Amino acid sequence: MPRTITAYSNPLIKQVRDLRDKRHRREQGLFLAEGLRILTEARETGRVPRYLFFAAASARHPLVEALIHAVEGAGGEAIETTPDILSKLSGKDNPQAVVGVFAAFETGLADLDRRAAPIWLVAERLRDPGNLGTILRTGDAVGAGGLILIGECVDPFSVEAVRASMGALFTVPIVRTEWTPFVDWLRGGAGQLVGLSLQTEHDYRSADYAAPTFLLTGNEAQGLPEAYEAECDLLVKLPMLGKADSLNAAVATAVMAYEVLAHHR
Amino acid sequence: MPRTITAYSNPLIKQVRDLRDKRHRREQGLFLAEGLRILTEARETGRVPRYLFFAAASARHPLVEALIHAVEGAGGEAIETTPDILSKLSGKDNPQAVVGVFAAFETGLADLDRRAAPIWLVAERLRDPGNLGTILRTGDAVGAGGLILIGECVDPFSVEAVRASMGALFTVPIVRTEWTPFVDWLRGGAGQLVGLSLQTEHDYRSADYAAPTFLLTGNEAQGLPEAYEAECDLLVKLPMLGKADSLNAAVATAVMAYEVLAHHR
Repeated sequence: MPRTITAYSNPLIKQVRDLRDKRHRREQGLFLAEGLRILTEARETGRVPRYLFFAAASARHPLVEALIHAVEGAGGEAIETTPDILSKLSGKDNPQAVVGVFAAFETGLADLDRRAAPIWLVAERLRDPGNLGTILRTGDAVGAGGLILIGECVDPFSVEAVRASMGALFTVPIVRTEWTPFVDWLRGGAGQLVGLSLQTEHDYRSADYAAPTFLLTGNEAQGLPEAYEAECDLLVKLPMLGKADSLNAAVATAVMAYEVLAHHR
Repeated sequence: MPRTITAYSNPLIKQVRDLRDKRHRREQGLFLAEGLRILTEARETGRVPRYLFFAAASARHPLVEALIHAVEGAGGEAIETTPDILSKLSGKDNPQAVVGVFAAFETGLADLDRRAAPIWLVAERLRDPGNLGTILRTGDAVGAGGLILIGECVDPFSVEAVRASMGALFTVPIVRTEWTPFVDWLRGGAGQLVGLSLQTEHDYRSADYAAPTFLLTGNEAQGLPEAYEAECDLLVKLPMLGKADSLNAAVATAVMAYEVLAHHR
Protein backbone atom coordinates (compact mmCIF):
# COMPACT_ATOMS: atom_id res chain seq x y z
CA MET A 1 0.00 0.00 0.00
CA PRO A 2 1.39 3.40 -0.96
CA ARG A 3 1.87 5.77 1.94
CA THR A 4 0.69 9.36 1.65
CA ILE A 5 2.70 12.54 2.18
CA THR A 6 0.81 15.81 2.25
CA ALA A 7 3.23 18.01 4.19
CA TYR A 8 5.84 19.93 2.29
CA SER A 9 7.97 19.90 5.46
CA ASN A 10 8.33 16.11 5.30
CA PRO A 11 12.07 15.28 5.34
CA LEU A 12 11.83 12.96 2.34
CA ILE A 13 10.32 15.78 0.27
CA LYS A 14 13.21 18.02 1.26
CA GLN A 15 15.71 15.28 0.37
CA VAL A 16 14.12 14.82 -3.06
CA ARG A 17 13.94 18.57 -3.70
CA ASP A 18 17.68 18.72 -3.02
CA LEU A 19 18.30 16.38 -5.96
CA ARG A 20 17.90 19.34 -8.29
CA ASP A 21 21.36 20.25 -7.05
CA LYS A 22 24.41 18.46 -8.44
CA ARG A 23 26.21 18.19 -5.12
CA HIS A 24 23.22 16.51 -3.48
CA ARG A 25 22.87 14.10 -6.38
CA ARG A 26 26.49 13.07 -5.95
CA GLU A 27 26.23 12.76 -2.16
CA GLN A 28 22.99 10.77 -2.26
CA GLY A 29 23.81 8.73 -5.39
CA LEU A 30 20.29 9.46 -6.62
CA PHE A 31 18.64 11.49 -9.38
CA LEU A 32 15.19 12.67 -10.43
CA ALA A 33 13.21 11.74 -13.51
CA GLU A 34 9.68 12.89 -14.19
CA GLY A 35 6.82 12.11 -16.51
CA LEU A 36 4.94 8.94 -17.29
CA ARG A 37 6.62 8.40 -20.63
CA ILE A 38 10.16 8.59 -19.26
CA LEU A 39 9.43 6.48 -16.18
CA THR A 40 7.70 3.84 -18.30
CA GLU A 41 10.69 3.78 -20.66
CA ALA A 42 12.90 3.28 -17.60
CA ARG A 43 10.74 0.45 -16.31
CA GLU A 44 10.89 -1.31 -19.67
CA THR A 45 14.69 -1.27 -19.50
CA GLY A 46 14.60 -2.68 -15.98
CA ARG A 47 15.23 0.56 -14.07
CA VAL A 48 12.70 1.09 -11.33
CA PRO A 49 12.67 4.16 -9.09
CA ARG A 50 13.50 3.80 -5.42
CA TYR A 51 10.74 6.33 -4.68
CA LEU A 52 7.78 7.00 -6.93
CA PHE A 53 5.60 10.08 -6.27
CA PHE A 54 2.16 10.37 -7.81
CA ALA A 55 -1.09 12.28 -7.25
CA ALA A 56 -4.35 10.59 -6.38
CA ALA A 57 -5.87 11.78 -9.66
CA SER A 58 -3.46 9.64 -11.71
CA ALA A 59 -3.34 6.52 -9.49
CA ARG A 60 -5.83 4.65 -11.68
CA HIS A 61 -3.93 5.22 -14.93
CA PRO A 62 -2.78 1.77 -16.10
CA LEU A 63 0.81 2.93 -16.65
CA VAL A 64 0.90 4.52 -13.19
CA GLU A 65 -0.51 1.32 -11.70
CA ALA A 66 2.17 -0.65 -13.51
CA LEU A 67 4.85 1.66 -12.11
CA ILE A 68 3.52 1.39 -8.55
CA HIS A 69 3.47 -2.38 -8.90
CA ALA A 70 7.03 -2.48 -10.25
CA VAL A 71 8.35 -0.14 -7.55
CA GLU A 72 6.80 -2.14 -4.73
CA GLY A 73 7.95 -5.40 -6.28
CA ALA A 74 11.52 -4.10 -6.38
CA GLY A 75 11.48 -3.05 -2.73
CA GLY A 76 11.01 0.65 -3.46
CA GLU A 77 8.30 2.91 -2.16
CA ALA A 78 5.29 4.38 -3.98
CA ILE A 79 4.11 7.59 -2.35
CA GLU A 80 0.87 9.40 -2.97
CA THR A 81 1.20 13.15 -2.64
CA THR A 82 -0.53 16.42 -3.54
CA PRO A 83 -0.39 18.11 -6.97
CA ASP A 84 1.25 21.04 -5.20
CA ILE A 85 4.10 18.96 -3.79
CA LEU A 86 4.49 17.13 -7.12
CA SER A 87 4.84 20.48 -8.83
CA LYS A 88 7.47 21.54 -6.29
CA LEU A 89 9.40 18.29 -6.74
CA SER A 90 9.50 18.69 -10.50
CA GLY A 91 10.20 22.43 -10.42
CA LYS A 92 7.56 22.97 -13.10
CA ASP A 93 4.30 24.89 -12.90
CA ASN A 94 2.57 22.15 -14.79
CA PRO A 95 3.58 19.04 -12.87
CA GLN A 96 3.94 15.77 -14.67
CA ALA A 97 1.84 12.91 -13.40
CA VAL A 98 4.73 11.11 -11.73
CA VAL A 99 8.18 11.83 -10.32
CA GLY A 100 10.72 9.07 -9.73
CA VAL A 101 13.90 8.99 -7.67
CA PHE A 102 16.43 6.58 -9.15
CA ALA A 103 19.77 5.22 -8.03
CA ALA A 104 22.51 6.76 -10.17
CA PHE A 105 24.32 4.36 -12.48
CA GLU A 106 27.46 4.59 -14.49
CA THR A 107 29.29 2.59 -17.12
CA GLY A 108 33.07 2.35 -17.39
CA LEU A 109 35.08 2.33 -20.62
CA ALA A 110 36.09 -1.26 -19.81
CA ASP A 111 32.43 -2.27 -19.78
CA LEU A 112 31.88 -1.19 -23.40
CA ASP A 113 31.86 -3.70 -26.23
CA ARG A 114 32.81 -1.58 -29.23
CA ARG A 115 31.67 -4.32 -31.59
CA ALA A 116 28.15 -4.11 -30.21
CA ALA A 117 27.25 -1.07 -32.33
CA PRO A 118 28.51 0.63 -35.51
CA ILE A 119 28.10 4.16 -34.08
CA TRP A 120 29.29 5.65 -30.82
CA LEU A 121 28.89 9.23 -29.67
CA VAL A 122 31.66 11.13 -27.89
CA ALA A 123 31.21 14.66 -26.52
CA GLU A 124 33.76 16.85 -24.79
CA ARG A 125 33.06 19.72 -22.37
CA LEU A 126 29.39 19.79 -23.28
CA ARG A 127 27.84 22.63 -21.23
CA ASP A 128 24.15 22.58 -21.99
CA PRO A 129 21.97 19.93 -20.32
CA GLY A 130 19.39 20.20 -23.11
CA ASN A 131 22.08 19.41 -25.68
CA LEU A 132 23.29 16.45 -23.65
CA GLY A 133 19.79 15.02 -23.31
CA THR A 134 19.03 15.63 -26.98
CA ILE A 135 22.25 13.86 -28.00
CA LEU A 136 21.24 10.86 -25.87
CA ARG A 137 17.84 10.84 -27.55
CA THR A 138 19.51 10.89 -30.98
CA GLY A 139 21.86 8.14 -29.81
CA ASP A 140 18.87 5.97 -29.01
CA ALA A 141 17.35 6.63 -32.46
CA VAL A 142 20.51 5.76 -34.42
CA GLY A 143 21.29 2.72 -32.28
CA ALA A 144 24.47 4.18 -30.83
CA GLY A 145 26.43 1.90 -28.52
CA GLY A 146 26.79 4.65 -25.95
CA LEU A 147 27.69 8.25 -25.18
CA ILE A 148 31.20 8.88 -23.91
CA LEU A 149 31.58 12.20 -22.07
CA ILE A 150 35.06 13.70 -22.01
CA GLY A 151 36.28 16.24 -19.46
CA GLU A 152 34.12 18.75 -17.63
CA CYS A 153 30.66 18.05 -19.06
CA VAL A 154 27.28 19.01 -17.66
CA ASP A 155 25.80 16.32 -15.41
CA PRO A 156 23.76 13.82 -17.48
CA PHE A 157 21.63 13.21 -14.37
CA SER A 158 20.53 16.84 -14.11
CA VAL A 159 16.76 17.33 -14.31
CA GLU A 160 17.04 19.21 -17.63
CA ALA A 161 19.25 16.58 -19.29
CA VAL A 162 17.01 13.73 -18.14
CA ARG A 163 13.98 15.59 -19.46
CA ALA A 164 15.55 16.36 -22.86
CA SER A 165 16.66 12.72 -23.22
CA MET A 166 13.01 11.63 -23.16
CA GLY A 167 14.06 8.39 -21.51
CA ALA A 168 17.19 7.72 -23.60
CA LEU A 169 19.20 8.23 -20.40
CA PHE A 170 17.99 4.74 -19.50
CA THR A 171 18.65 3.11 -22.88
CA VAL A 172 22.00 4.59 -23.97
CA PRO A 173 25.02 3.70 -21.79
CA ILE A 174 26.92 6.75 -20.55
CA VAL A 175 30.62 6.79 -19.71
CA ARG A 176 32.30 9.74 -18.00
CA THR A 177 36.02 9.88 -18.52
CA GLU A 178 38.95 12.06 -19.61
CA TRP A 179 40.61 12.47 -22.99
CA THR A 180 43.77 10.42 -22.33
CA PRO A 181 42.10 7.30 -20.93
CA PHE A 182 39.54 7.53 -23.75
CA VAL A 183 42.22 7.65 -26.45
CA ASP A 184 44.15 4.81 -24.77
CA TRP A 185 41.02 2.69 -24.73
CA LEU A 186 40.05 3.65 -28.30
CA ARG A 187 43.46 2.75 -29.70
CA GLY A 188 43.35 -0.61 -27.97
CA GLY A 189 41.00 -1.91 -30.68
CA ALA A 190 39.14 -1.07 -33.87
CA GLY A 191 37.49 2.32 -34.10
CA GLN A 192 37.49 5.35 -36.39
CA LEU A 193 37.50 8.68 -34.58
CA VAL A 194 35.61 11.28 -36.64
CA GLY A 195 35.51 14.97 -35.79
CA LEU A 196 33.48 17.83 -37.22
CA SER A 197 35.72 20.72 -38.14
CA LEU A 198 35.77 23.95 -40.10
CA GLN A 199 39.48 23.36 -40.86
CA THR A 200 39.05 20.65 -43.48
CA GLU A 201 37.99 20.26 -47.09
CA HIS A 202 36.43 16.80 -46.55
CA ASP A 203 32.72 17.04 -47.10
CA TYR A 204 30.84 14.88 -44.59
CA ARG A 205 28.78 13.41 -47.40
CA SER A 206 31.63 11.92 -49.43
CA ALA A 207 33.77 10.69 -46.54
CA ASP A 208 34.44 7.03 -45.85
CA TYR A 209 33.15 5.90 -42.50
CA ALA A 210 34.33 2.63 -40.97
CA ALA A 211 32.47 0.86 -38.18
CA PRO A 212 32.74 1.24 -35.29
CA THR A 213 32.65 4.99 -35.91
CA PHE A 214 33.21 7.29 -32.91
CA LEU A 215 31.66 10.69 -33.59
CA LEU A 216 33.37 13.43 -31.61
CA THR A 217 31.42 16.61 -30.71
CA GLY A 218 33.20 19.61 -29.17
CA ASN A 219 32.23 22.27 -26.68
CA GLU A 220 29.30 24.46 -27.79
CA ALA A 221 31.25 27.72 -27.84
CA GLN A 222 34.77 26.60 -28.66
CA GLY A 223 34.48 23.42 -30.71
CA LEU A 224 37.25 20.83 -30.52
CA PRO A 225 40.73 21.63 -29.19
CA GLU A 226 43.44 21.36 -31.85
CA ALA A 227 45.07 18.38 -30.18
CA TYR A 228 41.77 16.51 -30.30
CA GLU A 229 41.34 17.28 -33.99
CA ALA A 230 44.88 16.03 -34.59
CA GLU A 231 43.99 12.71 -32.96
CA CYS A 232 41.00 12.20 -35.26
CA ASP A 233 41.26 9.63 -38.06
CA LEU A 234 38.95 11.75 -40.15
CA LEU A 235 37.84 15.36 -40.03
CA VAL A 236 34.77 16.32 -42.00
CA LYS A 237 32.79 19.49 -42.52
CA LEU A 238 29.13 20.22 -42.99
CA PRO A 239 28.13 22.76 -45.61
CA MET A 240 27.43 26.13 -43.99
CA LEU A 241 25.63 28.40 -46.40
CA GLY A 242 24.54 31.04 -43.92
CA LYS A 243 25.97 34.05 -42.18
CA ALA A 244 27.05 32.14 -39.07
CA ASP A 245 29.56 29.30 -39.38
CA SER A 246 27.91 27.18 -36.75
CA LEU A 247 25.21 24.74 -35.80
CA ASN A 248 23.80 23.74 -32.45
CA ALA A 249 26.02 20.95 -31.04
CA ALA A 250 23.16 18.45 -30.73
CA VAL A 251 22.01 19.25 -34.28
CA ALA A 252 25.49 18.80 -35.77
CA THR A 253 25.87 15.49 -33.90
CA ALA A 254 22.53 14.27 -35.24
CA VAL A 255 23.22 15.21 -38.85
CA MET A 256 26.55 13.38 -38.63
CA ALA A 257 25.06 10.36 -36.85
CA TYR A 258 22.37 9.92 -39.49
CA GLU A 259 24.99 10.26 -42.24
CA VAL A 260 27.15 7.56 -40.68
CA LEU A 261 24.10 5.37 -40.16
CA ALA A 262 23.22 5.70 -43.88
CA HIS A 263 26.77 4.70 -44.85
CA HIS A 264 26.67 1.66 -42.61
CA ARG A 265 23.20 0.53 -43.74
CA MET B 1 27.74 60.42 -25.78
CA PRO B 2 26.10 57.44 -24.05
CA ARG B 3 24.05 58.33 -21.00
CA THR B 4 24.45 56.33 -17.82
CA ILE B 5 21.77 54.55 -15.79
CA THR B 6 22.74 53.17 -12.42
CA ALA B 7 19.36 52.97 -10.68
CA TYR B 8 17.34 49.84 -11.04
CA SER B 9 14.22 51.94 -10.44
CA ASN B 10 14.75 53.85 -13.68
CA PRO B 11 11.55 53.58 -15.77
CA LEU B 12 13.41 52.52 -18.91
CA ILE B 13 14.97 49.60 -17.02
CA LYS B 14 11.51 48.53 -15.88
CA GLN B 15 10.21 48.80 -19.46
CA VAL B 16 13.05 46.67 -20.79
CA ARG B 17 12.66 44.09 -18.01
CA ASP B 18 9.01 43.76 -19.03
CA LEU B 19 10.09 42.59 -22.48
CA ARG B 20 10.71 39.14 -21.03
CA ASP B 21 6.94 38.89 -21.07
CA LYS B 22 5.11 38.15 -24.33
CA ARG B 23 2.26 40.57 -23.70
CA HIS B 24 4.69 43.46 -23.14
CA ARG B 25 6.63 42.57 -26.27
CA ARG B 26 3.44 42.73 -28.29
CA GLU B 27 2.28 45.99 -26.70
CA GLN B 28 5.63 47.72 -27.08
CA GLY B 29 6.54 46.17 -30.46
CA LEU B 30 10.02 45.54 -29.09
CA PHE B 31 12.13 42.54 -28.11
CA LEU B 32 15.37 41.75 -26.31
CA ALA B 33 18.55 40.22 -27.71
CA GLU B 34 21.74 39.78 -25.74
CA GLY B 35 25.35 38.95 -26.32
CA LEU B 36 28.02 40.50 -28.47
CA ARG B 37 27.92 37.79 -31.10
CA ILE B 38 24.17 38.03 -31.69
CA LEU B 39 24.10 41.84 -31.67
CA THR B 40 27.02 41.98 -34.07
CA GLU B 41 25.26 39.51 -36.37
CA ALA B 42 22.20 41.77 -36.23
CA ARG B 43 24.25 44.85 -37.06
CA GLU B 44 25.79 43.10 -40.07
CA THR B 45 22.31 42.43 -41.42
CA GLY B 46 21.34 46.06 -40.89
CA ARG B 47 19.33 45.63 -37.68
CA VAL B 48 20.44 48.06 -35.00
CA PRO B 49 18.93 48.14 -31.50
CA ARG B 50 16.87 51.10 -30.43
CA TYR B 51 18.51 50.85 -27.00
CA LEU B 52 21.90 49.30 -26.35
CA PHE B 53 22.95 48.56 -22.76
CA PHE B 54 26.56 47.88 -21.90
CA ALA B 55 28.84 47.94 -18.86
CA ALA B 56 31.80 50.27 -18.54
CA ALA B 57 34.17 47.30 -18.51
CA SER B 58 33.27 46.36 -22.10
CA ALA B 59 32.97 49.85 -23.61
CA ARG B 60 36.45 49.66 -25.15
CA HIS B 61 35.87 46.34 -26.91
CA PRO B 62 36.03 47.11 -30.66
CA LEU B 63 32.77 45.26 -31.38
CA VAL B 64 31.01 47.12 -28.55
CA GLU B 65 32.40 50.40 -29.87
CA ALA B 66 31.11 49.50 -33.33
CA LEU B 67 27.67 48.76 -31.88
CA ILE B 68 27.54 52.05 -29.94
CA HIS B 69 28.53 53.89 -33.09
CA ALA B 70 25.88 52.11 -35.17
CA VAL B 71 23.14 52.69 -32.58
CA GLU B 72 23.89 56.39 -32.27
CA GLY B 73 24.15 56.73 -36.04
CA ALA B 74 20.71 55.19 -36.44
CA GLY B 75 19.09 57.51 -33.89
CA GLY B 76 19.02 54.95 -31.09
CA GLU B 77 20.47 55.30 -27.65
CA ALA B 78 23.56 53.63 -26.14
CA ILE B 79 23.30 53.40 -22.37
CA GLU B 80 26.06 52.57 -19.94
CA THR B 81 24.85 50.67 -16.93
CA THR B 82 26.06 48.50 -14.05
CA PRO B 83 26.90 44.77 -14.33
CA ASP B 84 24.12 44.18 -11.80
CA ILE B 85 21.45 45.88 -13.94
CA LEU B 86 22.77 44.16 -17.07
CA SER B 87 22.40 40.85 -15.31
CA LYS B 88 18.84 41.71 -14.33
CA LEU B 89 17.98 42.77 -17.87
CA SER B 90 19.26 39.52 -19.32
CA GLY B 91 17.81 37.35 -16.55
CA LYS B 92 21.10 35.47 -16.34
CA ASP B 93 23.54 35.27 -13.44
CA ASN B 94 26.40 35.65 -15.84
CA PRO B 95 25.40 38.70 -17.85
CA GLN B 96 26.46 38.99 -21.44
CA ALA B 97 28.48 42.05 -22.33
CA VAL B 98 25.60 43.78 -24.11
CA VAL B 99 21.82 43.79 -24.21
CA GLY B 100 19.90 45.27 -27.14
CA VAL B 101 16.26 46.29 -27.47
CA PHE B 102 15.07 45.93 -31.06
CA ALA B 103 11.93 46.89 -32.93
CA ALA B 104 9.97 43.75 -33.75
CA PHE B 105 9.74 42.87 -37.41
CA GLU B 106 7.64 40.46 -39.38
CA THR B 107 7.44 39.08 -42.88
CA GLY B 108 4.20 38.20 -44.66
CA LEU B 109 3.64 35.22 -46.95
CA ALA B 110 3.18 37.64 -49.83
CA ASP B 111 6.68 39.01 -49.21
CA LEU B 112 8.34 35.63 -49.79
CA ASP B 113 9.97 34.78 -53.09
CA ARG B 114 9.82 30.98 -53.14
CA ARG B 115 12.35 30.88 -55.99
CA ALA B 116 14.94 32.61 -53.82
CA ALA B 117 15.91 29.40 -52.01
CA PRO B 118 15.64 25.63 -52.62
CA ILE B 119 14.71 24.87 -48.97
CA TRP B 120 12.07 26.39 -46.74
CA LEU B 121 11.22 25.39 -43.18
CA VAL B 122 7.66 25.15 -41.92
CA ALA B 123 6.77 24.37 -38.31
CA GLU B 124 3.35 23.99 -36.74
CA ARG B 125 2.44 24.46 -33.07
CA LEU B 126 6.08 24.47 -32.00
CA ARG B 127 6.07 24.85 -28.19
CA ASP B 128 9.69 25.04 -27.17
CA PRO B 129 11.56 28.33 -27.67
CA GLY B 130 14.90 26.49 -27.74
CA ASN B 131 13.65 24.31 -30.59
CA LEU B 132 12.40 27.35 -32.50
CA GLY B 133 15.73 29.15 -32.13
CA THR B 134 17.69 26.03 -33.04
CA ILE B 135 15.56 25.53 -36.17
CA LEU B 136 16.28 29.13 -37.19
CA ARG B 137 19.99 28.52 -36.67
CA THR B 138 19.80 25.39 -38.85
CA GLY B 139 17.82 27.38 -41.41
CA ASP B 140 20.66 29.87 -41.62
CA ALA B 141 23.21 27.06 -42.10
CA VAL B 142 21.33 25.31 -44.92
CA GLY B 143 20.43 28.56 -46.67
CA ALA B 144 16.71 28.24 -46.05
CA GLY B 145 14.54 30.95 -47.58
CA GLY B 146 12.63 31.38 -44.34
CA LEU B 147 10.79 29.79 -41.45
CA ILE B 148 6.99 29.70 -41.72
CA LEU B 149 5.25 29.24 -38.37
CA ILE B 150 1.78 27.71 -38.49
CA GLY B 151 -0.82 28.08 -35.75
CA GLU B 152 -0.14 28.58 -32.07
CA CYS B 153 3.68 28.56 -31.96
CA VAL B 154 5.97 29.85 -29.24
CA ASP B 155 7.00 33.48 -29.77
CA PRO B 156 10.16 33.67 -31.94
CA PHE B 157 11.01 36.93 -30.18
CA SER B 158 11.13 35.35 -26.72
CA VAL B 159 14.48 35.70 -24.98
CA GLU B 160 15.10 31.93 -25.11
CA ALA B 161 14.31 31.62 -28.83
CA VAL B 162 16.49 34.61 -29.71
CA ARG B 163 19.34 33.14 -27.66
CA ALA B 164 19.07 29.66 -29.22
CA SER B 165 18.98 31.17 -32.71
CA MET B 166 22.47 32.61 -32.16
CA GLY B 167 21.58 35.52 -34.40
CA ALA B 168 19.71 33.58 -37.09
CA LEU B 169 16.57 35.43 -36.00
CA PHE B 170 18.06 38.36 -37.90
CA THR B 171 19.10 36.43 -41.01
CA VAL B 172 16.20 34.02 -41.63
CA PRO B 173 12.83 35.63 -42.51
CA ILE B 174 9.99 34.51 -40.22
CA VAL B 175 6.35 34.37 -41.24
CA ARG B 176 3.55 33.73 -38.73
CA THR B 177 0.37 32.44 -40.30
CA GLU B 178 -2.29 29.72 -40.19
CA TRP B 179 -2.57 26.43 -42.05
CA THR B 180 -5.22 27.45 -44.60
CA PRO B 181 -3.60 30.67 -45.82
CA PHE B 182 -0.27 28.84 -45.94
CA VAL B 183 -1.64 26.03 -48.12
CA ASP B 184 -3.43 28.57 -50.35
CA TRP B 185 -0.18 30.44 -50.83
CA LEU B 186 1.86 27.27 -51.33
CA ARG B 187 -0.46 25.92 -54.01
CA GLY B 188 -0.32 29.22 -55.86
CA GLY B 189 3.10 28.29 -57.23
CA ALA B 190 5.83 25.65 -57.32
CA GLY B 191 6.68 23.90 -54.06
CA GLN B 192 6.93 20.37 -52.71
CA LEU B 193 5.52 19.94 -49.21
CA VAL B 194 7.46 17.24 -47.34
CA GLY B 195 6.44 15.87 -43.97
CA LEU B 196 8.21 13.54 -41.57
CA SER B 197 5.94 10.71 -40.53
CA LEU B 198 5.97 7.32 -38.88
CA GLN B 199 3.05 6.26 -41.12
CA THR B 200 5.03 5.78 -44.32
CA GLU B 201 7.46 3.33 -45.89
CA HIS B 202 9.37 6.03 -47.81
CA ASP B 203 12.88 6.24 -46.44
CA TYR B 204 14.06 9.86 -46.27
CA ARG B 205 17.29 8.87 -47.95
CA SER B 206 15.83 7.49 -51.18
CA ALA B 207 13.06 10.04 -51.65
CA ASP B 208 12.97 12.50 -54.51
CA TYR B 209 13.08 16.10 -53.39
CA ALA B 210 12.11 18.90 -55.75
CA ALA B 211 13.07 22.53 -55.18
CA PRO B 212 11.63 24.57 -53.64
CA THR B 213 11.16 21.98 -50.89
CA PHE B 214 9.01 22.97 -47.91
CA LEU B 215 9.94 20.84 -44.89
CA LEU B 216 7.07 20.53 -42.45
CA THR B 217 7.79 19.88 -38.75
CA GLY B 218 4.98 19.05 -36.34
CA ASN B 219 4.31 19.75 -32.68
CA GLU B 220 6.91 18.25 -30.31
CA ALA B 221 4.49 15.97 -28.48
CA GLN B 222 1.88 15.18 -31.11
CA GLY B 223 3.61 15.40 -34.48
CA LEU B 224 1.59 16.43 -37.55
CA PRO B 225 -2.22 16.30 -37.63
CA GLU B 226 -3.56 13.74 -40.12
CA ALA B 227 -5.04 16.42 -42.36
CA TYR B 228 -1.63 18.07 -42.64
CA GLU B 229 0.02 14.77 -43.55
CA ALA B 230 -2.67 14.25 -46.19
CA GLU B 231 -1.78 17.61 -47.75
CA CYS B 232 1.90 16.69 -48.06
CA ASP B 233 3.27 15.84 -51.50
CA LEU B 234 5.71 13.46 -49.88
CA LEU B 235 5.90 11.75 -46.50
CA VAL B 236 9.21 10.29 -45.47
CA LYS B 237 10.51 8.52 -42.39
CA LEU B 238 13.83 8.51 -40.63
CA PRO B 239 15.19 5.19 -39.41
CA MET B 240 14.48 4.75 -35.69
CA LEU B 241 16.56 1.93 -34.29
CA GLY B 242 16.02 2.65 -30.61
CA LYS B 243 13.44 2.05 -27.96
CA ALA B 244 11.67 5.38 -28.47
CA ASP B 245 10.13 6.19 -31.86
CA SER B 246 11.03 9.84 -31.71
CA LEU B 247 13.61 12.54 -32.19
CA ASN B 248 13.80 16.09 -30.89
CA ALA B 249 11.87 18.32 -33.34
CA ALA B 250 14.84 20.58 -34.10
CA VAL B 251 17.06 17.54 -34.65
CA ALA B 252 14.60 15.86 -37.03
CA THR B 253 14.25 19.13 -38.95
CA ALA B 254 18.02 19.45 -39.28
CA VAL B 255 18.60 15.88 -40.44
CA MET B 256 15.92 16.39 -43.09
CA ALA B 257 17.19 19.82 -44.11
CA TYR B 258 20.73 18.52 -44.65
CA GLU B 259 19.37 15.58 -46.64
CA VAL B 260 17.40 17.88 -48.92
CA LEU B 261 20.40 20.17 -49.24
CA ALA B 262 22.55 17.21 -50.35
CA HIS B 263 19.96 16.24 -52.97
CA HIS B 264 19.83 19.77 -54.33
CA ARG B 265 23.60 20.26 -54.39
